[in-house]
This record gives sequence, C-alpha cells and structure tokens, in this order.
Amino acid sequence: MPVIQVNMLPGRTPEQKRELIAVFTREFVRICKTKPEAVKIVIHDVPPENFGSGGVPMSDPVGQ
Amino acid sequence: MPVIQVNMLPGRTPEQKRELIAVFTREFVRICKTKPEAVKIVIHDVPPENFGSGGVPMSDPVGQ
Amino acid sequence: MPVIQVNMLPGRTPEQKRELIAVFTREFVRICKTKPEAVKIVIHDVPPENFGSGGVPMSDPVGQ
Amino acid sequence: MPVIQVNMLPGRTPEQKRELIAVFTREFVRICKTKPEAVKIVIHDVPPENFGSGGVPMSDPVGQ
Amino acid sequence: MPVIQVNMLPGRTPEQKRELIAVFTREFVRICKTKPEAVKIVIHDVPPENFGSGGVPMSDPVGQ
Amino acid sequence: MPVIQVNMLPGRTPEQKRELIAVFTREFVRICKTKPEAVKIVIHDVPPENFGSGGVPMSDPVGQ
Repeated sequence: MPVIQVNMLPGRTPEQKRELIAVFTREFVRICKTKPEAVKIVIHDVPPENFGSGGVPMSDPVGQ
Repeated sequence: MPVIQVNMLPGRTPEQKRELIAVFTREFVRICKTKPEAVKIVIHDVPPENFGSGGVPMSDPVGQ
Repeated sequence: MPVIQVNMLPGRTPEQKRELIAVFTREFVRICKTKPEAVKIVIHDVPPENFGSGGVPMSDPVGQ
Repeated sequence: MPVIQVNMLPGRTPEQKRELIAVFTREFVRICKTKPEAVKIVIHDVPPENFGSGGVPMSDPVGQ
Repeated sequence: MPVIQVNMLPGRTPEQKRELIAVFTREFVRICKTKPEAVKIVIHDVPPENFGSGGVPMSDPVGQ
Repeated sequence: MPVIQVNMLPGRTPEQKRELIAVFTREFVRICKTKPEAVKIVIHDVPPENFGSGGVPMSDPVGQ
C-alpha cells in the first residue's frame, strides 16, 4: 500500500524509469505520510497502436 | 476521463484495434454525454497462457 | 476473455450502464470475432476529486 | 511484487476477505517461490450493476 | 497518455489528492517529456480490509 | 465475475502459470461460493525494471 500503476508509451530508458520510481515514491511518502517500503509501482509499456485518445490510436498521425 | 482498459488475446490487426478504439469512443460519448477527447483507451495484449477461465489457461485445449 | 475495465465519473443511471455493457459487448464481438459470453466488463465509479487531468482534479473548476 | 487485484461482487465478510488474502498469498509463495511480504493484494468491491457478463449487468435476472 | 492509477487507503483530504495529482503530473512531464494535458490519473480509495500485505489485511493489527 | 489480475515478474513456466490459475480459481470458488466458470484471471509479466519497491526498480541490486 499504495499500489501505483503507470501505463505509458514504450521507449523510455531504464534511467527514466528509475527516476520515475524514485520520485513517485518520494513524493507519495511526503504527501500521504507513509513509508517508502510500502510503495509499490508497476509500469506497463503500451505500444502506440494500443493507446487510444479522442477515438484514434497514438500510432496514427492525428493521434500523436 | 473516462479511462477504458481492454485485456484481450494478441493477434488482432492494427485495423481491428483502430476500429475498437473508434467505436468504443463514439459509443461512450453517445451514451454518457462526454467529449471524444476525454476518452482514453489502453489495450493490453495478453498471451493465452496468461488468460485463465474456469480454472484453465486459454492455451489449453479445454480452455479455448 | 476479453476483460474490459471502465473508470468513469459517478452519476450515470443503471440504464446508461446497461446500454454501455450491451454495446461494448456487441461491438467487441463484431470486431474481434468472439462470443458474447466471453466478454467481461467491470465499471468503476470514480469521484471527480479522484480523477486528474492536466494536473488538476476534475472537481476543480479548471479541471472540468 | 507480485501485485494481485481482485474485482468481485460486494457482500463478502471480513473473514472471507481475510481468508482470500491469506490463501492467495500462501499459494503464490508456494508456486512462484517468493516471500509473503512481497505479495500485495487489492480487492475492489464492484456492485452488480457495474459488472457485465455476456452483454448484461449482473443485476439483471438474466445476468446472475 | 500516460494513464496512472493509484490504489491507496481512504482518508486522504482533497488537498492531499490535489497535490498528488499536481506533483505526479509535473514530475511525469519533466522526466518523460510529455504535455501535462496528456497525463490522466485515477485514484481508488481502498478500505484497509481490502488491502492485503504479507498475507494479512491492513485492517488487522499485524497488517498495519 | 470475479476478475483477478496478477502482475508478476516474468520467467515463470507455463506449468507454474497453469497451477496458479487452477489454485486461485479453486480457492476463490471455495471461499466465496461461486462457479469456476465465473472466475477470470489475467496475468501480466512485468520486467524487473518496470517494478518499483521502496523507491528502486527490482532490476537494481538493492531492489531485489
């Protein structure tokens, strides 16, 4: 507790993922008063043809 | 808002995914009175050995 | 299979939810060639202060 | 790790939830060789009008 | 895109949720180079008897 | 109904996944009094750099 899930486009580097995990954990602990060990984060890399916004996939020129 | 997640078997074409995103967005907008831009859809392709139904994976003959 | 999850604002009527379930199921079956019995849908009613877009909750005037 | 989410109908007692958490944790540890402390479980109580199966909500007589 | 889901214990104030949404959005934009409008966040308030850790619910003295 | 999602590290064999699906279904049916056919399970294999615990990814030596 808490469990945080992030669905994002693929292509981020391991360093970006590491910073995201570190910062989300640090900020959740600060704002919600819990322990870092309690914060679990799951990242799903979602390809652009699997992400829809406004009715079109992100892989379409108009979806970008 | 809204956020729609779809877990489905892999193997659907980009055209099928594009139609799914278009139709789910159009129908949600019609039924729930919101704007297309507000509708976000995330598709997860789940391999059949990772899908369980009735206690067996979809990859088993009896699970199909 | 498939499993579809919808996170949306509360306040929709049972009739709107019933139509959403019926239409999403019918369209998924048509586009992806599966059986209606295989389609499972879970709706989560999410209050506006729990929905963030553009950095602000939907409960804020600017988040609406 | 792992993170397990359960969407189920409301009305189960705290004792049923406690047993579900205990048994899922014990069995995951046994089958997948991890530590109990690593297993996080989140239960969502989903009202029957928010659960769709075969195109109808569970709150309908035919959806039960 | 991205879609971030947070499962956490209930009881946080609207101000804490607002700050969480603001900070997660700002930091995701900074680390992953996207626009604030693209960041969608969904918070689920999960009661302690529905949160399992180490095989026990958070509502148990040993689960806290 | 119910829908169970499992996020876990990759590398488990098809036999481990089959047993997990069989046991979670059997135990849910026993504890919550439902039919095996109603139990749907989705497994997501999450690489260690996408799993955060205590502020660090599982791919880091300290995150293991």
